[in-house]
Amino acid sequence: MTNSTQAQAREVLKNFIGEFGMLTPQETQLILDNSTLKLFKKGEFLLKEGQVSQHCYFVLEGTIREYHLQEGEEKTTAFYTEYDPVNAFSSALEQSPAQQNLIAAEDTWVTVGSQSIELAMCQQIPRLEHIIRKEVEKNTGKLQREFAQFIASSPAQRYQNLLVQKPELFQRVPQHQIASYLGITPESLSRLRKRLLEKEEK
Amino acid sequence: MTNSTQAQAREVLKNFIGEFGMLTPQETQLILDNSTLKLFKKGEFLLKEGQVSQHCYFVLEGTIREYHLQEGEEKTTAFYTEYDPVNAFSSALEQSPAQQNLIAAEDTWVTVGSQSIELAMCQQIPRLEHIIRKEVEKNTGKLQREFAQFIASSPAQRYQNLLVQKPELFQRVPQHQIASYLGITPESLSRLRKRLLEKEEK
Repeated sequence: MTNSTQAQAREVLKNFIGEFGMLTPQETQLILDNSTLKLFKKGEFLLKEGQVSQHCYFVLEGTIREYHLQEGEEKTTAFYTEYDPVNAFSSALEQSPAQQNLIAAEDTWVTVGSQSIELAMCQQIPRLEHIIRKEVEKNTGKLQREFAQFIASSPAQRYQNLLVQKPELFQRVPQHQIASYLGITPESLSRLRKRLLEKEEK
Repeated sequence: MTNSTQAQAREVLKNFIGEFGMLTPQETQLILDNSTLKLFKKGEFLLKEGQVSQHCYFVLEGTIREYHLQEGEEKTTAFYTEYDPVNAFSSALEQSPAQQNLIAAEDTWVTVGSQSIELAMCQQIPRLEHIIRKEVEKNTGKLQREFAQFIASSPAQRYQNLLVQKPELFQRVPQHQIASYLGITPESLSRLRKRLLEKEEK
């Protein structure tokens, strides 16, 4: 859970932008001045099924959980943590109703973006277009890799991959949500963790 | 299987570029002149595990299958068909060895792209940067949606989703590769198809 103030969250964003290594201090400042930061308290929704999102998000600190409702049951389909863009994309781009729900799994700082803000910033800093494209491509590659890995893995391997990808997640969200994401029951996850722990101790 | 000539494949690319609706005929021609088209015969590899890819691909006609080797067994993790960008991204961007294999599942026409070609074209047509970014974002949204759908679905639902997303696939690749992708045995897929067929007939 983040206890950060807005000023601290803005510092996180500043460091992230700094890592691009291609912008002048003035350009960085311009982006910061045009960025809207928002704190979602635990349990608050960023998006609900059926809504049309006008925004895209980017996690600075915290965890956003994505789930789909299936016959009244929540099926967790993604966790977004630090430096993850949050999937409201398709809804924002195609202006179609969202199929997913996005909820803050803990107090979470995000940046709130939109097509028009992005466009305005790219007009002021033309090479930002190139930088954003490279970031999106990098992210697409990561997503494709994780998708392929998910398909190719057993639940036990998926659990171990998640431990590597997001080790902090296990302290942040309840076990039954992780089990739902992995496609197993909470009891199976519990047995799996115990078995792997015993292996480590040997 | 494509029987198209290079000229016909180039026409497919021209129509695809035309759909962006933002380029002049001269700009479209410039992109076409800078595009390398290649025919991969059925069974030819675009990428093998461990190789570092310098290229990215885009399917004009045909099917590319992606698989990961697991204890000597091929686990199919994706099928790329018409207008799909082919995942050699992460390998191309990070210059890291590929974890996946990419093989032509039938005779397939692709465009062969690279960072340097893209860069050169964007310098000549600056707003191409914006167009490509939007295309990549759209694709990321699609990928995220399909990933979430895959996680949230049973094998039977995955089969039905695939029928909607890629109806032509079932005539193009052997059933056991589709079963591998769906995470079930070929026998289960066969039973599933029979069951759904009987339902339709009722």
